Amino acid sequence: MIPINISEKFKLFNEYWTPKKIGELNGQQLLLAKLKGEFIWHTHQNEDELFMIVKGQLKIKFRDKSVVLNKGELFIIPKGTEHKPIAEKEVHVLLFEPLEIKHTGGVKSNLTVETFEAI
Amino acid sequence: MIPINISEKFKLFNEYWTPKKIGELNGQQLLLAKLKGEFIWHTHQNEDELFMIVKGQLKIKFRDKSVVLNKGELFIIPKGTEHKPIAEKEVHVLLFEPLEIKHTGGVKSNLTVETFEAI
Repeated sequence: MIPINISEKFKLFNEYWTPKKIGELNGQQLLLAKLKGEFIWHTHQNEDELFMIVKGQLKIKFRDKSVVLNKGELFIIPKGTEHKPIAEKEVHVLLFEPLEIKHTGGVKSNLTVETFEAI
Repeated sequence: MIPINISEKFKLFNEYWTPKKIGELNGQQLLLAKLKGEFIWHTHQNEDELFMIVKGQLKIKFRDKSVVLNKGELFIIPKGTEHKPIAEKEVHVLLFEPLEIKHTGGVKSNLTVETFEAI
């Protein structure tokens, strides 16, 4: 029951591709992440995933197309849709997704984080 | 599967206290609303509710305290918590909540909207 200031939360970490949890509601979680470079191709079989761009420009590749998202834009990736986020420069995103999601989906990689740290 | 630009969506309506749906995922919905004046006291018995301030300053009164939220801040109201939003000047908010929620909670009022229009 306290206000969450998004900009202040982003000052609390610097790692890329390591989502931090800032809130939970209705079995869902709010995550912040800093992205830079290319993430892996992955799929969330059971969870839709929301990206909201807070800073920068994010490209998300799909197998048949790609989208480019700018600050103030959001995008919902339906479950079962393989995707690969690419950040040429640093991007700050807010993610909204179910508590049980893995950020690398069904793929195990050295980028996989088992538990999202709360900040 | 198209980018949603929050600023552009806010240009599509002018009514106050009438949330518009801009997306759905995982049984939840993303709503935008313009607020001005005082809303009614109400409670969502089964749904947590997220407010994210896109423009302006929103006060939310509870029975034992109140919070003031500014642009870039968000707040999660736990289910069962009676609250009353107050916007002295126009406020733009993004709401995130379950599909089955009523925005006036268990209270029927002339402000109650049965179905949120998609924009």
